[in-house]
Amino acid sequence: MSRPAPLTEAAIIERFFVRPARRRDVLLGIGDDAAVTRLAAGHDLVTAADAIFEGVHFPAGTPARAIGHRCLAVNLSDLAAMGAEPLWATLALSLPAPDSAWLREFARGFFALADAWRVALIGGDTVRGPLGMSVTVHGRVRRGRYVPRSTARPGDGLYVTGHPGDAVAGRLLLERSRGGRAAAQLRQRFLYPQPRLTEGRLLVPLASAMMDVSDGLHDDAGKLLRASGLGADLDAAAIPLSPALRAVAGMPRGRLLALTGGDDYELLFTVPARREPLLARAAQRWPCGIARLGTVSARPGLRWRLDGRRYRFADSTFRHFAPGRR
Amino acid sequence: MSRPAPLTEAAIIERFFVRPARRRDVLLGIGDDAAVTRLAAGHDLVTAADAIFEGVHFPAGTPARAIGHRCLAVNLSDLAAMGAEPLWATLALSLPAPDSAWLREFARGFFALADAWRVALIGGDTVRGPLGMSVTVHGRVRRGRYVPRSTARPGDGLYVTGHPGDAVAGRLLLERSRGGRAAAQLRQRFLYPQPRLTEGRLLVPLASAMMDVSDGLHDDAGKLLRASGLGADLDAAAIPLSPALRAVAGMPRGRLLALTGGDDYELLFTVPARREPLLARAAQRWPCGIARLGTVSARPGLRWRLDGRRYRFADSTFRHFAPGRR
Repeated sequence: MSRPAPLTEAAIIERFFVRPARRRDVLLGIGDDAAVTRLAAGHDLVTAADAIFEGVHFPAGTPARAIGHRCLAVNLSDLAAMGAEPLWATLALSLPAPDSAWLREFARGFFALADAWRVALIGGDTVRGPLGMSVTVHGRVRRGRYVPRSTARPGDGLYVTGHPGDAVAGRLLLERSRGGRAAAQLRQRFLYPQPRLTEGRLLVPLASAMMDVSDGLHDDAGKLLRASGLGADLDAAAIPLSPALRAVAGMPRGRLLALTGGDDYELLFTVPARREPLLARAAQRWPCGIARLGTVSARPGLRWRLDGRRYRFADSTFRHFAPGRR
Repeated sequence: MSRPAPLTEAAIIERFFVRPARRRDVLLGIGDDAAVTRLAAGHDLVTAADAIFEGVHFPAGTPARAIGHRCLAVNLSDLAAMGAEPLWATLALSLPAPDSAWLREFARGFFALADAWRVALIGGDTVRGPLGMSVTVHGRVRRGRYVPRSTARPGDGLYVTGHPGDAVAGRLLLERSRGGRAAAQLRQRFLYPQPRLTEGRLLVPLASAMMDVSDGLHDDAGKLLRASGLGADLDAAAIPLSPALRAVAGMPRGRLLALTGGDDYELLFTVPARREPLLARAAQRWPCGIARLGTVSARPGLRWRLDGRRYRFADSTFRHFAPGRR
């Protein structure tokens, strides 16, 4: 009986992560000191880097497949928010101890998402340490054709894709196995966020500013508008809550989760009034849907209203290192 | 008296890491969802990603400035090994607790090296977690003009830059404050490894294969030659030991440290016989120097000799996750 080879760093890379690149623009992939890739003429490179760690970005006990999906998804979401087409990724993986079953599931989650978007893993690093991953993704846009955060204008409409609040509800429901079908849907939304890459690219000619929602609708809308030196008048009733979230959390609490929860990876974007009809037409074909939250204003600050009155709520948005938070 | 603003993630990035890019090829730097950069026409992109963690890649108590230097240096060394010119970097920083003095020193170390090579920090992420950094660096080569690992040929000379063994000796000496000037030099070599970027670029027309030495001369020479399906006949007396290493460790032990120590970040490369005179001429101007270790052979395996006999030594090379090692 032959013993399996010990899981050295080289063996981990060889067994779980070396795969044919399936992209002709990858000249040299995993296995050398660095990767060599070729960017098509007439394009700019778009680069995003996000790290996730157990206990901070996902709870202990999260399935390995979901972690593999997530570490790539959160980065692809950043590319989506620029309107970029994804190309290549690098992965730095820190593991407390090598475990074949865990690695197989992690790689399955990572590559299922990578394959869906034709992303080639071109390099990385595997080290012993706390469970966490740092991914850098590369994408491309036609020269100069990206959507920054800081270019919204007064009078633009503010929009969001999909159903914010689902993911944070799903995270809260992870600890409980009950809840039926709606709860299962929400857990899935936390475990397998879908980057809005198709929508992001279609928004390049339409949106004046864009970002992805990772820290909650309220916090991120504040960031988007501050980046442009602007504010907005917003309607809390327009926040698009999913049937599953309404069923599990109810209306007022669902709205609060959408505003302050985070982990949504939806797109938040502004569109000049003259292009809003074009957007409405385009978005009819988007499975995730869109909602118009309100109008950008020259007056700084976010003013949420509900049923004709000012809508106040406790801002419990999670911020890394903020005092008095986890 | 005004209180300093709390060190949230945004404040850390703003206070310590946002700086003018000083490169015209950075269209959009830190602060958006992703960075946008422009690769000059006629070039390929070279990408390397390496993570370092406290307790694995540097001991607890390593000065913050040296850690900031190291996390970039180990990645620039990978670019050097391809013959690439460095351009841009992303940094994912994991911190147990934010500390202004530590962050200031870390950033000082990182940017001193970045500025020396005109590398722009274009993005990243700061999260609460164990002390560690994952850096991805981007560089460029003229189309197709890079040096892989796997293209050595029998008869080529095998060379190394600088003085392998210094860094591991410096690491061992970190725990002791004594040792005089030679020990201080060696500690400096561990704390501030200098990527051989200039030499790497000059080697593009000369070298047939190249990599950087991070795991020890013996282990890495084995990797380089296996990647080409070859072996080598090598002379242990040719290993270039520094005067400092010889003074501190003596000759036989110094040689062993060079062979199995690691952390050198020197270049290991092969050169076809007909180009060896060109190399000798070019390297006269390299402050780090080069040494010819032996000759590549079609027969697999590394055969070290010393004073006319086979040279045997215990291979104590560190490997991540290898059983029975740290």
